[in-house]
Amino acid sequence: MKRERDWHTCSLRVRYSETDQMGVVYHANYLTWFEIGRTEFIREKGMAYKEAESLGLLMPVVDVQIRYLHPARYDDVVEVRTRIAELGAIRMRFEYEIRNAVQSGAILATGRTEHVWVGKDWKPVRLAKAAPEIYRVLLETARETN
Amino acid sequence: MKRERDWHTCSLRVRYSETDQMGVVYHANYLTWFEIGRTEFIREKGMAYKEAESLGLLMPVVDVQIRYLHPARYDDVVEVRTRIAELGAIRMRFEYEIRNAVQSGAILATGRTEHVWVGKDWKPVRLAKAAPEIYRVLLETARETN
Amino acid sequence: MKRERDWHTCSLRVRYSETDQMGVVYHANYLTWFEIGRTEFIREKGMAYKEAESLGLLMPVVDVQIRYLHPARYDDVVEVRTRIAELGAIRMRFEYEIRNAVQSGAILATGRTEHVWVGKDWKPVRLAKAAPEIYRVLLETARETN
Amino acid sequence: MKRERDWHTCSLRVRYSETDQMGVVYHANYLTWFEIGRTEFIREKGMAYKEAESLGLLMPVVDVQIRYLHPARYDDVVEVRTRIAELGAIRMRFEYEIRNAVQSGAILATGRTEHVWVGKDWKPVRLAKAAPEIYRVLLETARETN
Repeated sequence: MKRERDWHTCSLRVRYSETDQMGVVYHANYLTWFEIGRTEFIREKGMAYKEAESLGLLMPVVDVQIRYLHPARYDDVVEVRTRIAELGAIRMRFEYEIRNAVQSGAILATGRTEHVWVGKDWKPVRLAKAAPEIYRVLLETARETN
Repeated sequence: MKRERDWHTCSLRVRYSETDQMGVVYHANYLTWFEIGRTEFIREKGMAYKEAESLGLLMPVVDVQIRYLHPARYDDVVEVRTRIAELGAIRMRFEYEIRNAVQSGAILATGRTEHVWVGKDWKPVRLAKAAPEIYRVLLETARETN
Repeated sequence: MKRERDWHTCSLRVRYSETDQMGVVYHANYLTWFEIGRTEFIREKGMAYKEAESLGLLMPVVDVQIRYLHPARYDDVVEVRTRIAELGAIRMRFEYEIRNAVQSGAILATGRTEHVWVGKDWKPVRLAKAAPEIYRVLLETARETN
Repeated sequence: MKRERDWHTCSLRVRYSETDQMGVVYHANYLTWFEIGRTEFIREKGMAYKEAESLGLLMPVVDVQIRYLHPARYDDVVEVRTRIAELGAIRMRFEYEIRNAVQSGAILATGRTEHVWVGKDWKPVRLAKAAPEIYRVLLETARETN
């Protein structure tokens, strides 16, 4: 199943602090889960995002989109599926799916985040030049998942 | 200036807890600010969102989009500008601008959230029927801001 | 090593969203980690806290104390060590240690939380009466760890 | 009423994101409110905490204690009352009360936070030496409120 190989998968358990009084996960927390998804994705490929930061490179989010299909609930185990949708010289885009991992398998939300590589002065940098090793890892990963 | 009348404006000061180690506001927190924006907007029109919930009506977010232009920083005063972009029978959409209120006046982020009115069973409800008074308030507000 | 048997241990990786601009974990987040600690502790003993809530029992926090010794940092793996320090008819107290699990093994923080069992009306309930099975599990657990 | 003069007071409205599925404010958020309390307190005395950080001084929390008396709820306006309980050469302690500002006036929680002044290397610094102006402001403030 090629489709299944496309995505990196990690899972997490919903925290009480992530719920709100609607009895479901507060919608902003999906962005935190996306962050975990892309961090674990690139870690698996041999790169810790904190190493990029220690080189003075930051990857701030410049655009996000989330579509919520079904609510996640306290104590659910959810699966975060992540892939690189686009890798440019200074921009990159990840795509995500959040699934209920145990009970239903249903897709709870889908989304994407777009990032720009910047230096400590918040000016864009060409990753391939500033950190060729990191760029190479991302490029290989992007190829595998597209 | 008609443009200025279109938007409801409220302001808030960035909390230390809203920053991350990049030295700026963590991107998920803008969704919390959007929430404050729409809450204060409809409060000004005479409706507290909590009254809707006390009637058994919830307004979960079903879609969000945010574009980040400049980072917000700790202790900044930011202005949240909100308007109703669309009001349907069961769906509604808000639009937002986050501005630096004091120093630069710059737009820091823009975004939108889409909502569906549901009952406690999470099934969609026609607001005009379930809570005609709330619907009327929103309708008037939507007209003013479009 | 009896000491080692006293504590239930689980581990988690520090999220980017948990940091603040001081470059370390924001101090309030340790309370979320304590929550994870006690949840996983009692889950291991055969009880999911959400089952208590589904019976109409809540376990709000009525007192907390935390001592911070060394900062936790982004991407660190931390160990949450939890034990029941006291189990009464309507109150219970947990104790915690947060340790750096990989690099130093150092204790980063210690703390305790005190809870009261209440019903949906927020009035205290005697757990042994309201949910004898849950009480029995907690009692056995408390005995083991004291 | 001397008692009333002792405390600095500011107020805030409970955010939806601060609630949890118990239908009340998640207990960790009181620490964020304490932070706002002490920030606004010292701002009123002529010092923005961010100025201390721009001088390379940090004021991490080394100990907290909170006692929860009544839950705060969504959309409540709460009053954060803050005072300096102790000011030493490198340590200081704040005390807090959280009150329901509108409906009941009840005290919802009380607490304290203890801080140590450190430099960017996280080593303790004598504030009176490192930033005499800030120390003077805090000293005057501490005298007024004790």
